[in-house]
Amino acid sequence: MRVNGHGMRTIWDTDGVVEIIDQRFLPHELKIIPLETLEDARAAIADMKVRGAPCIGATAMYGMAVAMRNDPSDASLAQAQETLNGSRPTAVNLEWATRECVEAVSDISASKRADILFKMARKNCDDDADMCSNIGDYGKTLLDEIAKYKGGDVINILTHCNAGWVATVDWGTAISPIYKAFNAGMNVHVWVDETRPRSQGARLTAWELEQHGVPYTVITDNSGGHLMQHGLVDICFVGTDRTTATGDVCNKIGTYLKALAAFDNDVPFYVCAPSNSIDWDMQDGLKEIPIEVRSGEQEVGWITGRDEDGIIRRVTTMPDPKKTRNDAFDVTPRKYITGLITERGIANASRAGLLQLFPEKA
Amino acid sequence: MRVNGHGMRTIWDTDGVVEIIDQRFLPHELKIIPLETLEDARAAIADMKVRGAPCIGATAMYGMAVAMRNDPSDASLAQAQETLNGSRPTAVNLEWATRECVEAVSDISASKRADILFKMARKNCDDDADMCSNIGDYGKTLLDEIAKYKGGDVINILTHCNAGWVATVDWGTAISPIYKAFNAGMNVHVWVDETRPRSQGARLTAWELEQHGVPYTVITDNSGGHLMQHGLVDICFVGTDRTTATGDVCNKIGTYLKALAAFDNDVPFYVCAPSNSIDWDMQDGLKEIPIEVRSGEQEVGWITGRDEDGIIRRVTTMPDPKKTRNDAFDVTPRKYITGLITERGIANASRAGLLQLFPEKA
Repeated sequence: MRVNGHGMRTIWDTDGVVEIIDQRFLPHELKIIPLETLEDARAAIADMKVRGAPCIGATAMYGMAVAMRNDPSDASLAQAQETLNGSRPTAVNLEWATRECVEAVSDISASKRADILFKMARKNCDDDADMCSNIGDYGKTLLDEIAKYKGGDVINILTHCNAGWVATVDWGTAISPIYKAFNAGMNVHVWVDETRPRSQGARLTAWELEQHGVPYTVITDNSGGHLMQHGLVDICFVGTDRTTATGDVCNKIGTYLKALAAFDNDVPFYVCAPSNSIDWDMQDGLKEIPIEVRSGEQEVGWITGRDEDGIIRRVTTMPDPKKTRNDAFDVTPRKYITGLITERGIANASRAGLLQLFPEKA
Repeated sequence: MRVNGHGMRTIWDTDGVVEIIDQRFLPHELKIIPLETLEDARAAIADMKVRGAPCIGATAMYGMAVAMRNDPSDASLAQAQETLNGSRPTAVNLEWATRECVEAVSDISASKRADILFKMARKNCDDDADMCSNIGDYGKTLLDEIAKYKGGDVINILTHCNAGWVATVDWGTAISPIYKAFNAGMNVHVWVDETRPRSQGARLTAWELEQHGVPYTVITDNSGGHLMQHGLVDICFVGTDRTTATGDVCNKIGTYLKALAAFDNDVPFYVCAPSNSIDWDMQDGLKEIPIEVRSGEQEVGWITGRDEDGIIRRVTTMPDPKKTRNDAFDVTPRKYITGLITERGIANASRAGLLQLFPEKA
């Protein structure tokens, strides 16, 4: 999407020079860094220069490609896979990406491996962007429906965390329908949940929308229910980290509270769920999905931002930043979800609904 | 309650020397300042050195007393009332406190006025502390019931914002039952909602509990629903800024979301509502209670805390701190409230429930 007036993705290569946005500096600085070695790719993932499952997967594929360019041996191939797989503990896309690469080139002569993997990495980026674009097109149909009864009045969309283009290669998931509507000239405005503790809404979603020119307002995570009570939210779009085969959704902590408020106020609540987020073996999100508990002191106790002089600092509001707890995700039961927007269309949040779009999983 | 091992209130006088805690420096510094003049009292309220309706009322009464000590004339009395009433726009307790003072001394000879008002101010503090203590005793009976089925296991209480002793003269409202239980040796632990944007939970409730020795953990405002889904919350206690005659509650933004989650998970949700919070003329909280919208840039856009060197700084996580909105309160409809804990006992959140305890309002 647009950054400083130009189209940009989270990762790209120009004649074999791979570059990424180092997202740790957003929204304060747009820092672009090269991926020249396997170590660069590993560090990009491990240090959270890139984040979001699709973006991590894309980085891993390019990491395999640069590793093969620097040393195309079998030993190097195996080491690249192992190194990248170990860079983040629970990223499903990571293992998928490296496995695809190994399978594609393990029987190929060393001299051809890098070329093949660069092509794969590029195609994977395009495929991911297409998938997100499709989700956007389907999601936009919901906004078109709302536009019919709103006349020209602004359509207010609430989102939580960042499921925008910087979490993917391009378009994003939950924000993709908004970009599609905005690009088509529709009158949209986004309520961006701050999303404590890591503030991905305030940092990343706000930055994306700012850069693309989409009207938005950052609100505290406490505010969405009140806005819904007063008719100020027309629809909610959120992402998902994992979706059960029955339609339960595990997403950033706090998603569940917004779903409850949407349900209480008859506000449609949609989850943008690319099919690779669906775990077809899981039935009950609350019982089966393990929830990562991260450092409370680092993420809840201390808040990092820029001060008035533009210097990055961290501050605490608490008497003891260690007395904190930091569950990273929660589960929204399917009964509170109006629908799941996938790259094949919009499904009811149920096994039957999902199987209608993905009959091959029956 | 206890601070550095000693009992303390938010405001007190020793032989006519009035002192308050300047709460703007909490939790980082316990700063005690004198109120020697009318201007000191006005500034204490206007600059939010004191906050919370009961604490503001107590400060206003002492402000009237010191004004009369410095100049007991009729003109001075009228000016003190006008000055203090203008110190905060919407504090009901403020006008009540100054009116009580004026009525008590306007027909009294000037030389006796200060003495009378100092006595009134002291009695008002004691009365407020007694009222909060009663709320604590009634609230503790609910914890006693929970203790019966929890055996000796920890009782987890969730609270939002600060309705502790620093919002009153002593004991607080929502935290009073917790102090009563803790003082009686019960095994309690408090989940403290951070309460963005002003972080009164992280700053004030955490500080109170830390000082009194009550076990607590600060969580993001996004977390409470998830904890309730997993059986980690036994009961919720929150305060109220205004309660309708029908039992709707206006309280800090985000209270409504926690009430929804409590309802969804069968967690009892109690509002600690001193009778002076009840507006007997109001029927429908959502329609009738005006919600203050404060500066988004100042409070949402910028976060103030201490850095690692102990220096107070403010930082922002956002690309543009101005693109923010800051509704300060929300309304929780009575259907989500298990009960209202008043100084006369626990009422159903309904007109009939309240009238049972306050039959004189029928």
